[in-house]
Amino acid sequence: MKFFEDIAVGERAELGHHTFTADDIKKFARRYDPQPFHLDEAAAKRSHFGALCASGWHTAATWMRLMVEYQVREDAARKARGEPVATLGPSPGFRELKWLRPVYVGDTVKYSTEIIDKRVSNSRPGWGIITIRNTGVNQKGEPVISFISVVFLQSRAGSETKST
Amino acid sequence: MKFFEDIAVGERAELGHHTFTADDIKKFARRYDPQPFHLDEAAAKRSHFGALCASGWHTAATWMRLMVEYQVREDAARKARGEPVATLGPSPGFRELKWLRPVYVGDTVKYSTEIIDKRVSNSRPGWGIITIRNTGVNQKGEPVISFISVVFLQSRAGSETKST
Repeated sequence: MKFFEDIAVGERAELGHHTFTADDIKKFARRYDPQPFHLDEAAAKRSHFGALCASGWHTAATWMRLMVEYQVREDAARKARGEPVATLGPSPGFRELKWLRPVYVGDTVKYSTEIIDKRVSNSRPGWGIITIRNTGVNQKGEPVISFISVVFLQSRAGSETKST
Repeated sequence: MKFFEDIAVGERAELGHHTFTADDIKKFARRYDPQPFHLDEAAAKRSHFGALCASGWHTAATWMRLMVEYQVREDAARKARGEPVATLGPSPGFRELKWLRPVYVGDTVKYSTEIIDKRVSNSRPGWGIITIRNTGVNQKGEPVISFISVVFLQSRAGSETKST
């Protein structure tokens, strides 16, 4: 990650995309959301969704995975350029999660982020808090998920204090 | 589920509990949140968490599973008593998700719900919207997760209209 000082409000990033297969959808559902419309094609057809679709938690957890993979790639690139890498702290949570449309079998969801706020942390000297709007859009360009996450991010000042 | 008319604000329910094992934590993390502190004991020890702990999305998805299992039990009991069962509609999303404390290996999280608001849906005749505060508490009685979910629930009126 960039350091807190180097992040600008309005910055966007493309995290990557994921195609939800029937197998993938059912596997997640069996373990975490065993509702008929996430488990069985025929039952899903009779439901308000009309066809097999992914658990909303599956769509959200897939964002997390792509976010982690994106950060790993970014940090590797930063290290390769000889730049220091900031530590991302814990996330206190997120807000306003909206499942805007079902994610059906074969849908490809592209996830992106936008920094919408940043402030210095009062409780943790050497850290800042960034607020991110996260969005997932399907192959038709329709938003399927959006939420706002908040995360602690190390500042340059914090990093220097730590290493002395 | 009960029908919308039969739900009272302030009603609480115990959904059940789950003990997070190391295997369980790593399995979820490998697929959805591959950060070192969710995957590896030694790396977790060096992190701000101090020990292996569950992905926050894992703690949240486990709520979903227990919620579904609770509803299945409730509906079966209702049917056994010869009572009609209301249909739960889609969830437009949730808000204010807070990860209040890490969930470490061996922690048992007990999930409960409280109805905090109900209103008739304007967009879907025959349906109501209920707002639920969801909480997960560990074996020491410390809250580890809380969030507010919103879900459509069939009303008796809606159910009668549908069946004629």
